[in-house]
Amino acid sequence: MIPRYTPKDMAALWSDTTRFATWLDVELAACEAMERAGLVPEGTAARLRAKQLALDPARIDEIERTVKHDVIAFLTHVEELAGPDARWLHRGMTSSDLLDTSLALLLTRAADALIARQAAYAASLVTRAQEHATTPMIGRSHGIHAEPITFGVALAGHAAEAARGIERLRAARAEIAVGKIAGAVGTYAHLSPEIERDALSGLGLLPETVSTQIVPRDRHAAFFVALALVGAGVERLATNVRHWQRNEVGEAEEAFTAGQKGSSAMPHKRNPILSENLTGLARMLRGYALPALEDVALWHERDISHSSVERMIAPDATTTLACMQDRAKALVDGLVVYPERLRQNLDRTGGLFFSEALLLALVETGLPRQEAYVLVQRNAMKALTLGQDFRANLLADPDVSGRLGRERIERAFDLSHALRYASEIVARVSGSA
Amino acid sequence: MIPRYTPKDMAALWSDTTRFATWLDVELAACEAMERAGLVPEGTAARLRAKQLALDPARIDEIERTVKHDVIAFLTHVEELAGPDARWLHRGMTSSDLLDTSLALLLTRAADALIARQAAYAASLVTRAQEHATTPMIGRSHGIHAEPITFGVALAGHAAEAARGIERLRAARAEIAVGKIAGAVGTYAHLSPEIERDALSGLGLLPETVSTQIVPRDRHAAFFVALALVGAGVERLATNVRHWQRNEVGEAEEAFTAGQKGSSAMPHKRNPILSENLTGLARMLRGYALPALEDVALWHERDISHSSVERMIAPDATTTLACMQDRAKALVDGLVVYPERLRQNLDRTGGLFFSEALLLALVETGLPRQEAYVLVQRNAMKALTLGQDFRANLLADPDVSGRLGRERIERAFDLSHALRYASEIVARVSGSA
Amino acid sequence: MIPRYTPKDMAALWSDTTRFATWLDVELAACEAMERAGLVPEGTAARLRAKQLALDPARIDEIERTVKHDVIAFLTHVEELAGPDARWLHRGMTSSDLLDTSLALLLTRAADALIARQAAYAASLVTRAQEHATTPMIGRSHGIHAEPITFGVALAGHAAEAARGIERLRAARAEIAVGKIAGAVGTYAHLSPEIERDALSGLGLLPETVSTQIVPRDRHAAFFVALALVGAGVERLATNVRHWQRNEVGEAEEAFTAGQKGSSAMPHKRNPILSENLTGLARMLRGYALPALEDVALWHERDISHSSVERMIAPDATTTLACMQDRAKALVDGLVVYPERLRQNLDRTGGLFFSEALLLALVETGLPRQEAYVLVQRNAMKALTLGQDFRANLLADPDVSGRLGRERIERAFDLSHALRYASEIVARVSGSA
Amino acid sequence: MIPRYTPKDMAALWSDTTRFATWLDVELAACEAMERAGLVPEGTAARLRAKQLALDPARIDEIERTVKHDVIAFLTHVEELAGPDARWLHRGMTSSDLLDTSLALLLTRAADALIARQAAYAASLVTRAQEHATTPMIGRSHGIHAEPITFGVALAGHAAEAARGIERLRAARAEIAVGKIAGAVGTYAHLSPEIERDALSGLGLLPETVSTQIVPRDRHAAFFVALALVGAGVERLATNVRHWQRNEVGEAEEAFTAGQKGSSAMPHKRNPILSENLTGLARMLRGYALPALEDVALWHERDISHSSVERMIAPDATTTLACMQDRAKALVDGLVVYPERLRQNLDRTGGLFFSEALLLALVETGLPRQEAYVLVQRNAMKALTLGQDFRANLLADPDVSGRLGRERIERAFDLSHALRYASEIVARVSGSA
Repeated sequence: MIPRYTPKDMAALWSDTTRFATWLDVELAACEAMERAGLVPEGTAARLRAKQLALDPARIDEIERTVKHDVIAFLTHVEELAGPDARWLHRGMTSSDLLDTSLALLLTRAADALIARQAAYAASLVTRAQEHATTPMIGRSHGIHAEPITFGVALAGHAAEAARGIERLRAARAEIAVGKIAGAVGTYAHLSPEIERDALSGLGLLPETVSTQIVPRDRHAAFFVALALVGAGVERLATNVRHWQRNEVGEAEEAFTAGQKGSSAMPHKRNPILSENLTGLARMLRGYALPALEDVALWHERDISHSSVERMIAPDATTTLACMQDRAKALVDGLVVYPERLRQNLDRTGGLFFSEALLLALVETGLPRQEAYVLVQRNAMKALTLGQDFRANLLADPDVSGRLGRERIERAFDLSHALRYASEIVARVSGSA
Repeated sequence: MIPRYTPKDMAALWSDTTRFATWLDVELAACEAMERAGLVPEGTAARLRAKQLALDPARIDEIERTVKHDVIAFLTHVEELAGPDARWLHRGMTSSDLLDTSLALLLTRAADALIARQAAYAASLVTRAQEHATTPMIGRSHGIHAEPITFGVALAGHAAEAARGIERLRAARAEIAVGKIAGAVGTYAHLSPEIERDALSGLGLLPETVSTQIVPRDRHAAFFVALALVGAGVERLATNVRHWQRNEVGEAEEAFTAGQKGSSAMPHKRNPILSENLTGLARMLRGYALPALEDVALWHERDISHSSVERMIAPDATTTLACMQDRAKALVDGLVVYPERLRQNLDRTGGLFFSEALLLALVETGLPRQEAYVLVQRNAMKALTLGQDFRANLLADPDVSGRLGRERIERAFDLSHALRYASEIVARVSGSA
Repeated sequence: MIPRYTPKDMAALWSDTTRFATWLDVELAACEAMERAGLVPEGTAARLRAKQLALDPARIDEIERTVKHDVIAFLTHVEELAGPDARWLHRGMTSSDLLDTSLALLLTRAADALIARQAAYAASLVTRAQEHATTPMIGRSHGIHAEPITFGVALAGHAAEAARGIERLRAARAEIAVGKIAGAVGTYAHLSPEIERDALSGLGLLPETVSTQIVPRDRHAAFFVALALVGAGVERLATNVRHWQRNEVGEAEEAFTAGQKGSSAMPHKRNPILSENLTGLARMLRGYALPALEDVALWHERDISHSSVERMIAPDATTTLACMQDRAKALVDGLVVYPERLRQNLDRTGGLFFSEALLLALVETGLPRQEAYVLVQRNAMKALTLGQDFRANLLADPDVSGRLGRERIERAFDLSHALRYASEIVARVSGSA
Repeated sequence: MIPRYTPKDMAALWSDTTRFATWLDVELAACEAMERAGLVPEGTAARLRAKQLALDPARIDEIERTVKHDVIAFLTHVEELAGPDARWLHRGMTSSDLLDTSLALLLTRAADALIARQAAYAASLVTRAQEHATTPMIGRSHGIHAEPITFGVALAGHAAEAARGIERLRAARAEIAVGKIAGAVGTYAHLSPEIERDALSGLGLLPETVSTQIVPRDRHAAFFVALALVGAGVERLATNVRHWQRNEVGEAEEAFTAGQKGSSAMPHKRNPILSENLTGLARMLRGYALPALEDVALWHERDISHSSVERMIAPDATTTLACMQDRAKALVDGLVVYPERLRQNLDRTGGLFFSEALLLALVETGLPRQEAYVLVQRNAMKALTLGQDFRANLLADPDVSGRLGRERIERAFDLSHALRYASEIVARVSGSA
């Protein structure tokens, strides 16, 4: 979480103020459930709520430096502010009841912010895909010209991936929308399953099926790997923008704001720095997923090794992805597309990409596939290496034109036929917006 | 995939024989769909099926060494065996139509095998959890005695995690149960969406929403990270078995087969080598997930950098997890539990774990929490450091006994009360079996 | 870099103030070299230095928000403060000349801080190893009692690993103590190799052998993986402390400061939270190494995807390791060792660990190894399962005592003989301090 | 280790035959050292060597299935073949003495093979760099044209990185050229440091400073991360070849063998599949480094969780890198370079890359840098967007030509001046060959 990459809402979400406010929410929800269960005097939580405690993170830190325990520091501070009623808070609970339930609340809020952003990013992709549904473009495999697609189809592929990202984030949210008010080692020794259900339902969480001292960390690992997956989808788009923008390709480029300077030495350069930035941030998300996976195998009913990891990756990973999504949406919205250049590049190989249509036509005449392959390749290679016209070569090759005739050869060179499904493909993602 | 860690069914699934047979299945399904669409003469696929081709992997390899292209080698070999009808195979398709659809078939079959194994592993955990639902055990946080649980509750926690693993494997299966028969760069230039749907539905797969040259690799990444997650769950159990089995704990241990030798030097040693083995294999699964995540951002409509990765991790990761699940189930089934030792360890701290009950009782008398904490701690520490009896100390401490009275103090030391929800907790996972 | 885990010197090193001051150092060193080469008017750098510019990070940020280029923002600000002389700065240089050379300076300073800390940590381990060079302890493999060692030997193993960490950090420092003043794409178009050498030597850096636009990132990857390796060494110690401290073992424990509370619910608990914290932080270092490895394969003469990664991991990884080393040293210095408990645990198996000595003695009499193994195992197993005395069993077993005689059997049970090399082993690491 | 990616020497190195032969070597070396120390009857090893035992891996496997311990199975088999002398083997040793020392031998042999390959790969890069030392090429940052370099300089950068790889592999070899003959938990209870030194020196290994039951795994982690680093260097070259080969760039391409087919559908395609393959394999090496890093923190004097990891990654990682190096060398040797295309691309921006020379010339006249920047940028942008000639624009711009004059402007457009250091840069790597 460095300011450069931290959207404001995420900075607020992961502030000390929000964290301690969330802790208090959890304690009060638990207190109310205990009141209903008769374990705590009625009205306690209401009186505490009415005080609208202004928790002071600095004071809590100060206490923690002595007691070396953050929850005890927090409770001590609440008692300082609220007086005797506060003694009823945390009754029968263990620190992790508070911490894990609060973490679930913060992570679900982060997840909501990420889901909304992912939807906005996907919607932008859909809009731009629709705009360019029929803008022809050369499709590339291995970086080498393959057969025609449209720019809209290319963006639709990213939109479909972004939409899968929404689903993955929803699943990730469900994984961690789980709290625990079950006391030390999860046995409800001084509580009950009813109190847990009651307290958590008010907070919008489900109770953990079987908790230990904590909510098991396979849930959190699933959450953080989902973030890495979503980030990798953004990285794929960013990588393609970087390709599209390179001088020799020039098919699309990032919006360049007024005043922006490309280089301290070369004033004319327009670099895809936004996309490169997204590429690097995607690597960070993979890096954050790893310790989350190592956190699963905690010892016995819990060890606290996951805690330092989560103090860092919970804010860092959610913030990094939020930043990526904001930037990726802006990238898509502002992407400048050059249809003429797309067309020039498409024409660069003189229709060689129609070779498969020719191959199929020859096979349809009864020629074995391998023989047809040889016929097409020899004309393709002559065109490629001698700079000749592929179609003219085919027409002049008696083995080809003798079998197919001029009209059939010309029909194979029909771009609109090749792209006849482009709009249908783009339409598939329209619902994701 | 080394023989030591390769279950037989997985060896068969990832054999050349199965791979090429699957390729043929895909080509024939596509051929049939094309027949129905009128692109290929009727009866072609039926005649080819009737020939029951005995594909020879060695011959395909031999051809590949010349043409340096595995699919062309395969098709050439099919044509060698089947004659002219084979020319209709692969019509309008690109290699990835065949390869990715086949990979989807192989991975879904692997997923089915993994789901079945995970269910068996979870069921074993449930059985053993039920068996020990009320066997008392000390719960531990930080490796330090906390409060009592039961051995069944501990296993139920693993069972719940294993059950989540089933769901994650199912979701992973759905991610990759997707094929593609859309031709080069996914535009159906010589095919149609109907042919794709038709061909794939016969194979039990859905068509990719928007394919490029290939099925996008975010799906495969999601698959492989799910395997790492499931493996991490097994690792947690394995880690706990390793703790339980250590001499000083001795609460449970791996079954030791007759004839097995623990050490070449120390004949009496009984080492938890199965659990240690599972721990190492879980690390491998994390290692395999990583390149899968890096495979997502392929260039343009595809680059083939994912291929070398998948040739290795598709068999290696699925096989490693299958091996782990088999071994983890055997580990659970054979786990030898020592209830007396569980009880001895529980009693080791002289009931100190009842201190929270005391704390609560004192707070209920109106004492502020922090004061109650000090009262309990001074008696606990005296018991701990001087080896005194905790309960006797409390009874003898006028600040405590004056407030609570003997009966209330004794009530706080009631193990069956502390564990009253154990059976209910274990019952929660019974449905997962 | 969260305050909780950030030593003060590292906070200062990675502050904006230090960063911009370092940038100015690099520009001035380059300027002086250019003066000597006659490219820049003599005295320029001296006049600029004399101004003792008070760079304002906030103002630089403000400019960057317009120009979207940090180096241009910096140079603009310097010109604001210093006037016309500033125009000679950065002459013929590219941003990366400044950024990479500055990064090398910051990372070498971080490396120096890490090397010093690692040496201090290793020295503490050596001191404690010497203190307990002959304190007997049971050695454990698989968590199971094996043969005796001493507590000093155990710590000496960690000391030797820590000493290897010093060497790895030194090698890592050498990897990144390399700058670049070679202009755009590294060709010295407006500079010269002599200027580069001259400027860098004043900064204590070597010139990159062949730079691109930047210093190649294999160097930085090597640096960050070295940090992960050193962290893993600390993690091994932390893991062992966690084992030693568990109730059933109780051989050593972390110092517990006055006022510290182990648990909000269980006042008596003394948890190895420092060691668990170190375990989690070691995971973070692995997570940070990963994106550094992915940063190596930049495109052409550079792409800037490494930049966002390094903005995060350069401070985060170095700070995390520094924090770990400080805490690990404190852990070692404060470690409370319980020799009586070490002895109790050692005696727990009734000398079964001498079984190898018996095995060897039997083999020396000419008995085949496998037969000897059977003889020893049957006595070991009887002792183990029936709680009998191993030595007595052997003396009573005619197959054993008939071959060895009482005296030879008793000799095999000599602890001081088993540990005769302990001091010599500990002495091996004394030089590392 | 799949056949497709396994060089023959690596297949042989990691065969069961070699492994067991290495085990026998270690046992015999240890036996000889023990003979010299008087622990074993003289002549034992010589007699065993004279028998030239034909170890049968299948038989060892068979025994292991009963005893579930590979070393005991091996020793049992040796005794089957060699009779009573074999009983002296492994005296006082623990399995890990044998296994870790053998692993050190196998890994050092693998390291030697990797070092030799890396040297050959680096030498090929140097040769091709020298060949193209002065072949002009546009340098690119962000994929965007920056300033000119030469193709030789680009390759020299890779050669310098490859040479660093040699050093890293040598350091990695030194890390693991360490054995251990110190008995259970490393205390020499039935051996001596002298025997260890004696036995290991005959095998070309150093003794571990302080071993536990095993050689500490930080060494192996250092080894495997070094492989990942070297692989990342190859990946950088592969990534650049992929860029160079794309249609729009076309500056260099992989050799295309006769008979090779680029695509099953598009006969004319020439895809950089070798480079893409190398990219994927580099990802695998990162994946293998990870579990090695997790293997460091073993429990107490050892746990065996590293074993399953090493069974897989020791052969897989070394083989993968060897395969990569062979292929990378072939890639470099066969790389087809197109100097005319390099020149065309260089000329594509009409000399815009000379803008920095202009900028510097303007600054030299006393113009503030930011004003000079504006002057150059306006002429650059006009050239870029209107397709005008940059040089002509500058000559026609009175603000520029008034300050610089025609001759100074023309001098700034001198390619040979810009590249005057290219040969010197290439010469720097000549020594690495």
